[in-house]
Amino acid sequence: MNHDRLPTFAQILDAAARIAPHAAVTPVLRSAALDALAGAELHFKCENFQRGGAFKFRGACNAVWSLGEDEARAGVVTHSSGNHGSALALAAATRGIPAHVVVPEGAVQAKLALIERAGAVLHRCAPNQAAREAKAAEVQHATGAQLVHPYADDRVMAGQGTIALELLAQVPAMDALITPVGGGGLASGVAIAAHALRPGLSLHAAEPAGADDAARSLAAGTRVESVVPDTVCDGLRALVGTPNLQALRDHAVDVITVDDAQTVAAMRLIWQELRVVVEVSCATVLAAVLKEPGRFTGKRVGLVITGGNVDLDALPWARAANA
Amino acid sequence: MNHDRLPTFAQILDAAARIAPHAAVTPVLRSAALDALAGAELHFKCENFQRGGAFKFRGACNAVWSLGEDEARAGVVTHSSGNHGSALALAAATRGIPAHVVVPEGAVQAKLALIERAGAVLHRCAPNQAAREAKAAEVQHATGAQLVHPYADDRVMAGQGTIALELLAQVPAMDALITPVGGGGLASGVAIAAHALRPGLSLHAAEPAGADDAARSLAAGTRVESVVPDTVCDGLRALVGTPNLQALRDHAVDVITVDDAQTVAAMRLIWQELRVVVEVSCATVLAAVLKEPGRFTGKRVGLVITGGNVDLDALPWARAANA
Repeated sequence: MNHDRLPTFAQILDAAARIAPHAAVTPVLRSAALDALAGAELHFKCENFQRGGAFKFRGACNAVWSLGEDEARAGVVTHSSGNHGSALALAAATRGIPAHVVVPEGAVQAKLALIERAGAVLHRCAPNQAAREAKAAEVQHATGAQLVHPYADDRVMAGQGTIALELLAQVPAMDALITPVGGGGLASGVAIAAHALRPGLSLHAAEPAGADDAARSLAAGTRVESVVPDTVCDGLRALVGTPNLQALRDHAVDVITVDDAQTVAAMRLIWQELRVVVEVSCATVLAAVLKEPGRFTGKRVGLVITGGNVDLDALPWARAANA
Repeated sequence: MNHDRLPTFAQILDAAARIAPHAAVTPVLRSAALDALAGAELHFKCENFQRGGAFKFRGACNAVWSLGEDEARAGVVTHSSGNHGSALALAAATRGIPAHVVVPEGAVQAKLALIERAGAVLHRCAPNQAAREAKAAEVQHATGAQLVHPYADDRVMAGQGTIALELLAQVPAMDALITPVGGGGLASGVAIAAHALRPGLSLHAAEPAGADDAARSLAAGTRVESVVPDTVCDGLRALVGTPNLQALRDHAVDVITVDDAQTVAAMRLIWQELRVVVEVSCATVLAAVLKEPGRFTGKRVGLVITGGNVDLDALPWARAANA
């Protein structure tokens, strides 16, 4: 593992072979109504149907199965607002090794339940980056477990990049791809894989306006760490990682910011028209396409739907209606 | 078209070829959590991803494209609580012919919106079988449109039967199949196709306890018409058709009744664990498998998820919580 290095395309191909026995090949869904609304041909890569309900299983699984026999024995540890945590727990279970997951107070209950169900040990901490990292280091020290960072880890990025391999095999003649961006594990892995296969593909990332550090960092030419996340997109509150930001820059990824109201409206559209249960975070991609139609009109666009772990008793449009 | 005749297996194969240019091949989804809960291997055939959001497009499309050039010109008419109506409208649009849809007062708003969006003319009537049929006859007389009955029509049953062809190609080693049963178009088509391919397959149908005319009719040995439907399953309120009942009998389809509370709980499980938006009616199949585990334990079971057209502002568990 390397925190600063980006994965190569060869590592992404290796990851695909490594996770194939464990991960699902997820379907690509379409909706005539959403195509009409966007004026583009939208192909939704539904990672909410991935094992554990999110794309995160790919990166976690690649990391877990990349470990040597000896290092694997002590298990793995991570800090995660939820999906990476449950993904790592599930991945560790496929290899029969322990998983420790540091979770911030206030994390989505449905996600914590998934982590515990997968057999991981939960370690709670304050909801900020420093507290998460300190707690993870503490667990690492106490148990000898290997840290698997949610995004700034070349094994994790390589795993997430397998989505692009799969999607471009399912829909070869794609013009553009868009993923959400939080820490950037997905956006960076997908960018590397997609451009290795299709150098001319236009790459986009959707970011909540209330956690727009990636957009600011690209504009500033340096990593902006001063953003205090304020968004309903609980999966996109992390600051973009250093290698991840480098990948966005290398591959000229166009970051589109969307506000929460646009994202919640897009989430509802996905539920209604595509008929899949998706998290609010992944609706940013449709919100971005609808916000910036000029960049997508008439194109064949791949949208990565990242996860579907939601609290069915706390849907954001219901909250809005009751407020 | 014949109201009293069942389709042959050859007609179902013809239907598959006829609808292939227009209908989607829907994915089969699985959930480790639901498998564990059921003690069986569950394969969900997701017709909520079918064109128009429901399996009904298959039968409607087969009927529309079975018409001769001359009879097609005057268009088609049907009476439907919703999904068959929108399916027929969409199917008519694929051929560029008019569609008239008779809808009962009180039908689900999301479904009516779909019918209108597909370009059909809506004709409203009182919410009972006699009023629907009278209104449809009136429209038929006025326009010369061909009646496409929602279920008691061999073209429609043949179209619905293509689901079994597709599912058994996707998951060849199936032990059992279960569909919901309302009018019985789906259950009869699937039974004929499934037994033609796998004579030993065990066939089941799930029926709301508050609209259990199929179960009663099979028990009585004659079609029971006295049941007054009282169920949240708006798609399953129709009385089973005469040829449809015959198919259930011929193929020894085991009807399992489930009450609405079991169905709503199963609907929520499907949303949570399978992460798909499904109508309450199709949750009857999971409710039945969970209610009668003895009939399914250890088996590989195909469950037909029939549709995903829901009113996101009126989810049944939210109503229960607010009540």
